[in-house]
Amino acid sequence: MILEIAEIDVKTGSETAFEAAVTEATSLFAAAKGCQGMELHRGIEAPSQYVLMVKWNTLEDHTVTFRGSPEFSRWRELAGPHFAKPPQVRHVQLAVRTNGNSG
Amino acid sequence: MILEIAEIDVKTGSETAFEAAVTEATSLFAAAKGCQGMELHRGIEAPSQYVLMVKWNTLEDHTVTFRGSPEFSRWRELAGPHFAKPPQVRHVQLAVRTNGNSG
Repeated sequence: MILEIAEIDVKTGSETAFEAAVTEATSLFAAAKGCQGMELHRGIEAPSQYVLMVKWNTLEDHTVTFRGSPEFSRWRELAGPHFAKPPQVRHVQLAVRTNGNSG
Repeated sequence: MILEIAEIDVKTGSETAFEAAVTEATSLFAAAKGCQGMELHRGIEAPSQYVLMVKWNTLEDHTVTFRGSPEFSRWRELAGPHFAKPPQVRHVQLAVRTNGNSG
């Protein structure tokens, strides 16, 4: 499993519309090959800054299959108009983890 | 629940030692008040760049209680020597999520 982390800065004032667009787009991710789930997180210190995290089975499920699909075009159609600048995307993989005591 | 995201750039060549230090530090997070779990992710495009994600019940559990505790000093003692520069820390909260089909 790999995790896509996309930093998305949204135009000030577009936060509610952006979240509605992402909610509409959830079905695109839910149906995508190799997608294990998606979460959109909103910044507390900077509420126009979002972090989109998507779990994929493999890097190629994201960078090749999803990006080459009509679903990706639709995702960009829905979310893109709210971007303040192009998102910064990277991929990470789990190195260490632990459970807490309050979860 | 809030999510702490810390961007940690590690000195080149220190990656293995850093991961061992974080592994040793897992007990500090597991025991911390309000901590729901911790994950360390390693960059695929940039393998010296790590993302530490810690789930906390409240912002204050991290910024006040944990940072003021002896466990935080011990965490920095273990991990700090491997930092290439001071980590960048922010907090986010969940806005939208969906499950995938492969998880």
